[in-house]
Amino acid sequence: MKYDPINLREKLSKIEEHWSPRIIAEMNDYQFKLAKIAGEFVWHHHADTDEVFLVIEGNLEIEFKDGKASLKSGEMFVVPSGVAHRPVAKKECKIMLIEPKGVKNTGNVDNKRTLEDEVWI
Amino acid sequence: MKYDPINLREKLSKIEEHWSPRIIAEMNDYQFKLAKIAGEFVWHHHADTDEVFLVIEGNLEIEFKDGKASLKSGEMFVVPSGVAHRPVAKKECKIMLIEPKGVKNTGNVDNKRTLEDEVWI
Repeated sequence: MKYDPINLREKLSKIEEHWSPRIIAEMNDYQFKLAKIAGEFVWHHHADTDEVFLVIEGNLEIEFKDGKASLKSGEMFVVPSGVAHRPVAKKECKIMLIEPKGVKNTGNVDNKRTLEDEVWI
Repeated sequence: MKYDPINLREKLSKIEEHWSPRIIAEMNDYQFKLAKIAGEFVWHHHADTDEVFLVIEGNLEIEFKDGKASLKSGEMFVVPSGVAHRPVAKKECKIMLIEPKGVKNTGNVDNKRTLEDEVWI
């Protein structure tokens, strides 16, 4: 067994593209992903799963149809399954996502942001 | 729906006891827990699930029978299911645990550290 811890900032430093979550760990059938984001994502929902956002650095807004969550570094939020949401970061923001394996980043939507491949860093 | 983010440090400030993880969030059938720890825990394993440790503040060692993981703030580690381990913090350390609902903190062992109740903060 390997005993190297996973350093979030070190892993984040390897990410260049925005809106491209990279897998850093698996726990049972769940994955931990890191992403750099900036600007507005696409409105979407995940029909079958909740999704956790944890802000590592910066500020994140998660817009909902009837309100929004405003997160800063060290804050997390659980988006319930089935609820339409849109992540927005006015400036670059570094986040961790936690969700089951195989979840599509754009949920019920296919567009230019949709990722086809799962990539580990 | 409520849109208040969960602030990890604010939640941690409400914890007084060591080795008493408190639930702060649920995602599907998983829970996010915060804990303050100091000293040595009991050797144990979780037969049916992996367990994630994320260090918020301080230093954590996770001892294994044939080695150890040394984590500092901003680092995480996934303890695989079935693997005996013992968390140790020489000084007080603040951590987040992520694991399925209903996981006993002392795994296969019952002792004075075993928590009977699940408590939210």
